[in-house]
Amino acid sequence: WRRPLVCLLWEVAMIVLFGVFVRFGPEADAHWEEEKHDMNLTSDMENDFYFRYPSFQDVHVMIFVGFGFLMMFLKRYGFGAVGFNFLLAAFGIQWALLMQGWFHSFKNGKILVGVENLINADFCVGSVCIAFGAILGKTSPIQLLVMTLFQVTLFAVNEYILLNLLHVKDAGGSMTIHTFGAYFGLTVTRILYRPNLEQSKDKQGSVYHSDLFAMIGTLYLWMYWPSFNSAISDHGDAQHRAAINTYCSLAACVLTTMAFSSMLQKKGKLDMVHIQNATLAGGVAVGTSAEMMLTPYGSLIVGFISGIVSTVGYVYLTPFLESRLHIQDTCGIHNLHAMPGLIGGIVGAITAAAATEDVYGKEGFIKAFDFTGMYQTRTPSIQGGFQAAGIVVSLLMALVGGALVG
Amino acid sequence: WRRPLVCLLWEVAMIVLFGVFVRFGPEADAHWEEEKHDMNLTSDMENDFYFRYPSFQDVHVMIFVGFGFLMMFLKRYGFGAVGFNFLLAAFGIQWALLMQGWFHSFKNGKILVGVENLINADFCVGSVCIAFGAILGKTSPIQLLVMTLFQVTLFAVNEYILLNLLHVKDAGGSMTIHTFGAYFGLTVTRILYRPNLEQSKDKQGSVYHSDLFAMIGTLYLWMYWPSFNSAISDHGDAQHRAAINTYCSLAACVLTTMAFSSMLQKKGKLDMVHIQNATLAGGVAVGTSAEMMLTPYGSLIVGFISGIVSTVGYVYLTPFLESRLHIQDTCGIHNLHAMPGLIGGIVGAITAAAATEDVYGKEGFIKAFDFTGMYQTRTPSIQGGFQAAGIVVSLLMALVGGALVG
Amino acid sequence: WRRPLVCLLWEVAMIVLFGVFVRFGPEADAHWEEEKHDMNLTSDMENDFYFRYPSFQDVHVMIFVGFGFLMMFLKRYGFGAVGFNFLLAAFGIQWALLMQGWFHSFKNGKILVGVENLINADFCVGSVCIAFGAILGKTSPIQLLVMTLFQVTLFAVNEYILLNLLHVKDAGGSMTIHTFGAYFGLTVTRILYRPNLEQSKDKQGSVYHSDLFAMIGTLYLWMYWPSFNSAISDHGDAQHRAAINTYCSLAACVLTTMAFSSMLQKKGKLDMVHIQNATLAGGVAVGTSAEMMLTPYGSLIVGFISGIVSTVGYVYLTPFLESRLHIQDTCGIHNLHAMPGLIGGIVGAITAAAATEDVYGKEGFIKAFDFTGMYQTRTPSIQGGFQAAGIVVSLLMALVGGALVG
Repeated sequence: WRRPLVCLLWEVAMIVLFGVFVRFGPEADAHWEEEKHDMNLTSDMENDFYFRYPSFQDVHVMIFVGFGFLMMFLKRYGFGAVGFNFLLAAFGIQWALLMQGWFHSFKNGKILVGVENLINADFCVGSVCIAFGAILGKTSPIQLLVMTLFQVTLFAVNEYILLNLLHVKDAGGSMTIHTFGAYFGLTVTRILYRPNLEQSKDKQGSVYHSDLFAMIGTLYLWMYWPSFNSAISDHGDAQHRAAINTYCSLAACVLTTMAFSSMLQKKGKLDMVHIQNATLAGGVAVGTSAEMMLTPYGSLIVGFISGIVSTVGYVYLTPFLESRLHIQDTCGIHNLHAMPGLIGGIVGAITAAAATEDVYGKEGFIKAFDFTGMYQTRTPSIQGGFQAAGIVVSLLMALVGGALVG
Repeated sequence: WRRPLVCLLWEVAMIVLFGVFVRFGPEADAHWEEEKHDMNLTSDMENDFYFRYPSFQDVHVMIFVGFGFLMMFLKRYGFGAVGFNFLLAAFGIQWALLMQGWFHSFKNGKILVGVENLINADFCVGSVCIAFGAILGKTSPIQLLVMTLFQVTLFAVNEYILLNLLHVKDAGGSMTIHTFGAYFGLTVTRILYRPNLEQSKDKQGSVYHSDLFAMIGTLYLWMYWPSFNSAISDHGDAQHRAAINTYCSLAACVLTTMAFSSMLQKKGKLDMVHIQNATLAGGVAVGTSAEMMLTPYGSLIVGFISGIVSTVGYVYLTPFLESRLHIQDTCGIHNLHAMPGLIGGIVGAITAAAATEDVYGKEGFIKAFDFTGMYQTRTPSIQGGFQAAGIVVSLLMALVGGALVG
Repeated sequence: WRRPLVCLLWEVAMIVLFGVFVRFGPEADAHWEEEKHDMNLTSDMENDFYFRYPSFQDVHVMIFVGFGFLMMFLKRYGFGAVGFNFLLAAFGIQWALLMQGWFHSFKNGKILVGVENLINADFCVGSVCIAFGAILGKTSPIQLLVMTLFQVTLFAVNEYILLNLLHVKDAGGSMTIHTFGAYFGLTVTRILYRPNLEQSKDKQGSVYHSDLFAMIGTLYLWMYWPSFNSAISDHGDAQHRAAINTYCSLAACVLTTMAFSSMLQKKGKLDMVHIQNATLAGGVAVGTSAEMMLTPYGSLIVGFISGIVSTVGYVYLTPFLESRLHIQDTCGIHNLHAMPGLIGGIVGAITAAAATEDVYGKEGFIKAFDFTGMYQTRTPSIQGGFQAAGIVVSLLMALVGGALVG
């Protein structure tokens, strides 16, 4: 009786809080018809909905089908993985709309929501899904909901520190989503260490179809990652650029993953777990820099490296973490999200520090890094420093937060 | 030999009727290049294609993958469900283009089609897929095609009465698609009652993978439902609003479904059928009101209630309908579409009746309800009355039509 | 050790070539902010990203999920089909960006990429996936990569001849993608003829779930084909028209496929292979003409015919090809891509030859066929002749190229 009660009471709480705080943003409100005149907009196309809705739906698929099905490779947890992922994500997006709203869209006592808020809520929940990957099979649904509550809260605080206080760029969330989510989950799983946890993966017989379902998750994540990294970038060239960079990085990552996977196996056979996971590292690793002028070959290099790091991690690091550090990383999120997330943060810091007006153009330079208002005097190298500080903050928040929640 | 013959002859009939009646609408015709000048359009972006095509593709996925795979939970009918769904939908969209075209896009003896017609044809077929869910396993493909022919016809008539004569708003089709489709199907299955129908669901052994396939259907319906409810709303804020309302309602619905599902089971275990179906009731129940100023918390409340109603329906009402009323509702469409559809109609009527110029803004108010021309003098409370009348008309059409076709 | 080495070295080569040649196109470059002023663009919406990105993502799904899962109906090759498809596509898109870039987007020594290049790269790889369907189960991953390298190269040359030298229209790639890809693959499989190739399809026991996975592939190809054929059409009415034509053709194709499939089987049962494949022939067969004024009923006729041709091909032609001509066509691409591709080329030539200013409007006529500059004096009938020449060139390139590579 505890689980239903928690679900119902929390949902009632959501309704009350939404009733008090959440209203439609100007572009979703019926008043927009009049506001258009004031803003001299001649076309309905200028509504942010049309800039972001297709990307939003792709991200939505990544969170619910992508992450849900990817975790199915554990035969025993197939349905549980999808079902619990569904539950925590459905609760998480509501709580994220509130938490992120208070920090970012709060005006005159109301949270004004639009399609960008929906994307950000999905992003926030994505970080919870990542952490869920580390503790899969260890927790009850109630524990998951509690973890979601706290992780979403900490996510929003961390995001506020990075984006608003440090004025860091992180549209694809290498730091805010992946680094934070993964180290949070790893800390929690360390604390929940169970010496005799059944090694379901090895004990199960045929997992052939489970692997195919997991491959559906992988492919949807892989295909839609360009939408993930470009979903909340600036309108126009920034979204365009973010999609191209991510596309290139992911393509390169597949080749190095396949190469190292068969190199590190005894008989040269491909390990399905690597294909299902490490091929995605390229998307994580350009999360911060995709909207910058990373250039296509820069993206290929990042993808090349992250594919190697991630695959090597699966072969050598995951067993090491489990036997020595007692970190049972069920889905290997340390290899798919934590390390590539750190790479992504570092690449972002370097790319920002290396930016010049020559490469970006005078106006493009200011627009890309929002060097306006109180940040008018910030230089690329200082921005690079703040980006690096963002990595450290995300790491600390994840470790401390994970320890407390765990 | 009968089945192939019907398929071929009907397709020939379609070609003849399309040849006589169907032409490209102005925005899909090559003359648009010149028309743009006349209409003072400066950008190709103003083409309706760019406002609606992404939503169209999402709806398309819902009809063919969503409904098709959702019905797979019956192991024995797995392939049949997808295959027959494919056949009836492919025929249905052609016939719907004609029927809806005669009623809504008929100019100078020609039906002028554009992307909005494609969405409407998909919607109409969606209503057939719903009815198919009630009679799954009872009919031959030929019978299905005949049912499709008649149901699409009646759908178009009902839609014409609601949208044109009663001037009712129903962009997400709570009344026209769900209420009509579900009660139509339920009436047909009542008439086709077979006392000894094999209870495939219970007799089968492991349906594990069938359940996972069904979950694919569920998730795609759940994720893309915001596109469903916003696909044919007015450009701009209305589409934006419809997507947000649906997103919120669906999120709330997942929590109450999970809560009641484990509350009503003996051991507190979740019933997969509930998760696969009742989680979607929130989308159905905001079909009419999503494009109105329902507000996010209003959507949460609707989702909250419809999740409960739908789950309780699966546990108590479906067995009752079968044993007492001899209505064999194979997929439980009474719980997923009929009752939430009625809720949706009622919520729509109330939301419309409660509309004020204050909430919508002067222009937004007129635009949201099309209070122009001969409807200039209609007040919100009268509109609410007509909305309520729309529910009754849809119900009657479904019951009478279903009885005749059955 | 050979496979990893090839993957790594080729990826390094890609990085070097990208470093030398590939840069962001003007609409993805940060300079766009300034360029907008020069081009008098008032809205970020004018960025090509917003015209094409939703279609790009649909095409992306078709290549990786659609083609990958469609080939799963061979139980034994399930995971291999998806995995190898993933590897060759990830390499292929990089090489295609280069090859197509040199021919089409080369300016001042640099290849300038944007979203249209990504779509074209996916298209090019689609042609490789088609050829892969013929040789599935016969080749090692290395051989596949080598085939990809050469086929992409020849594809780009063929495309250059058709689009640039012959000034042929082929937005949906009936000739460049399907005819070329299929006959290329068939020639290769002819040369790799193995008399004792295990007939996996017949020897396997239950392939029930494999068939369901294959059906996922089929449905995604079927649903997104309108995006495939409209992805690189001209902005505005042409994209709109291409989507409608393809939608109609595919719907008609399903009915004739089902009809002929049950007519040609002994017991009138449907053959799953037909449903999985021949239902898609309608999309292939309007590839060239979809963006022209084919009209909806014209599309129905094309779909009607191609469904019949494709199904009959599966029943009679595939066994004949194998026993007499020693062409082992594992997935039946001769029926799904080769013949419908030829039909598509021919329909395109006829539609082009029949074009009149009356039907297209004066400006629409010029825009639809790009009758500007050095092509100002070309008439529809001459255009039809060039379209026909395009078919012949594609065929020759495929046969000669396939023979050399094989």
